[in-house]
Amino acid sequence: MPDSTVQPPSFDAAFSARLRELIFWRRDVRRFRRDPVAAELIDELIGLAVLAPSVGHSQPWRFVLVEDPARRSAVRDSFRRCNREALEDYHGERAGLYARLKLSGLEDAPVQLAIFCDEATEAGHGLGRKTMPETLRYSVVTAVHTLWLAARARGLGVGWVSILEPDQIARGLEVPGDWALIAYLCIGYPEEEHADPELERGGWEDRRDLSGCVLRR
Amino acid sequence: MPDSTVQPPSFDAAFSARLRELIFWRRDVRRFRRDPVAAELIDELIGLAVLAPSVGHSQPWRFVLVEDPARRSAVRDSFRRCNREALEDYHGERAGLYARLKLSGLEDAPVQLAIFCDEATEAGHGLGRKTMPETLRYSVVTAVHTLWLAARARGLGVGWVSILEPDQIARGLEVPGDWALIAYLCIGYPEEEHADPELERGGWEDRRDLSGCVLRR
Repeated sequence: MPDSTVQPPSFDAAFSARLRELIFWRRDVRRFRRDPVAAELIDELIGLAVLAPSVGHSQPWRFVLVEDPARRSAVRDSFRRCNREALEDYHGERAGLYARLKLSGLEDAPVQLAIFCDEATEAGHGLGRKTMPETLRYSVVTAVHTLWLAARARGLGVGWVSILEPDQIARGLEVPGDWALIAYLCIGYPEEEHADPELERGGWEDRRDLSGCVLRR
Repeated sequence: MPDSTVQPPSFDAAFSARLRELIFWRRDVRRFRRDPVAAELIDELIGLAVLAPSVGHSQPWRFVLVEDPARRSAVRDSFRRCNREALEDYHGERAGLYARLKLSGLEDAPVQLAIFCDEATEAGHGLGRKTMPETLRYSVVTAVHTLWLAARARGLGVGWVSILEPDQIARGLEVPGDWALIAYLCIGYPEEEHADPELERGGWEDRRDLSGCVLRR
C-alpha cells in the first residue's frame, strides 16, 4: 500500500485513453474457456474490490467462492427455473430471441463468486445511510464493478448472473441470514472477444444515444 | 468507437499496476477548489459512464446537471436537515466525531450531477430483472462508479452525497416521476490529496481486514 502522505500519481492522457479502452471492452462474458484461473489472481481481485467506495466506510462486501459441485449445480438449477419462467413472459419473435440468447456461463466458468451485502454490519456506524439505506447495497455494487474492471485488465472475463432466486442462493450457500445476494459472478478466460455486448449481437437491445438522458436544471 | 471485429487491446502489467493505483487513490472528495471544470470534460465522463454494464442492456442511467443556484441551495438545505437529524442519532464521543466530519462538498463543488434510474424504461425488455429487480438500480451504480474512476484519472475529485432526501431532490429537480435518485455527485478539482479515506483520518471507521469477508463453499 502506498504511504498516505505521498503524493498521488498523476495519470496521464495515455493512461486515460487506455482506461477508456478498458471500459469500452469490459463486456459481460457468458462463454468461458475451462482453463483454471490462478487462486492468487482471484485473491488479488478481491483485494482490489475492497478498495471500492462504501457508504460511511461500511465495507459491507462479503465474498463467497462457490466451489462445491453440488452447490454449483443448485445454482444452475435456480438459473434454469428462473430462465424458464422469464421466457414465459415473452411472446412471438421476442420469445424466440430470448430463447436463443446465452444468458449465463454457469456451465463452464471455472470460478464462481457470489457477492453479498452484510446488512447487519456495524462498520460505518450507519453514517450516510439514514435517508438512503440502499447505499449499503450500492457500495457492494461498486466493489463488484471494481473487480470486474480489474479482471478485464488481466484478460479475465466476468459475467453477472441475475436470473436467480437470491434467497435460494443465500440459503444454498449457508451464509449468515443478514447477508443479501448482490451479484453472482462467473469468472474465467473468455472464449471470444467482442467490442459489442452479447445482447446487441443477439438483436435484443441496442445501445441508446444520450438524447433525453442528460438534463440541465 | 473501436470496430466490433477488431481484437481487444491486451492490457499489460504496467497498466494493471496503474489501474491499481487509480483504484487505491480514488477517494470520496468533499473539499473542492472552486476552479471551473470544462463542460467538454463532463460530457466525456458521461460518455464513459454510459458504457457501464446494465441489466438486460437497459441503460437506465439519467444524468441531471444541477446548475441553477436556487436548486443547488435547496439541495444544500436538504443535506443540512438530514445531517442535523443524523447527528441526533449519535451520542457522546461519537456525536463529537460526527459533528467534526466534513460530509459534503456541496458549498464549493463547481459541478453537481444528480444521477437517476429510470424505473419505467422499456429498454432491455425486463431481461435479467424478474427475480432481482434491484439490478436496474445497480446498473446505474456501475455508471456512477465508471464516471468516478474516469474523473480521478483526469485529476478530478468526486464526492457522493447520500445524506439527502431522495424524493425531495427528485421533486426539486423536476425530473419524471419514474426516475429514482441513485447518487448526487459533487465534482471538481480536489483541494487536497489523500491516500486514506476522510472517514479514517477523522477517526470514524478503519479499513477492515478480509478475515470473515471471504468464505469458501
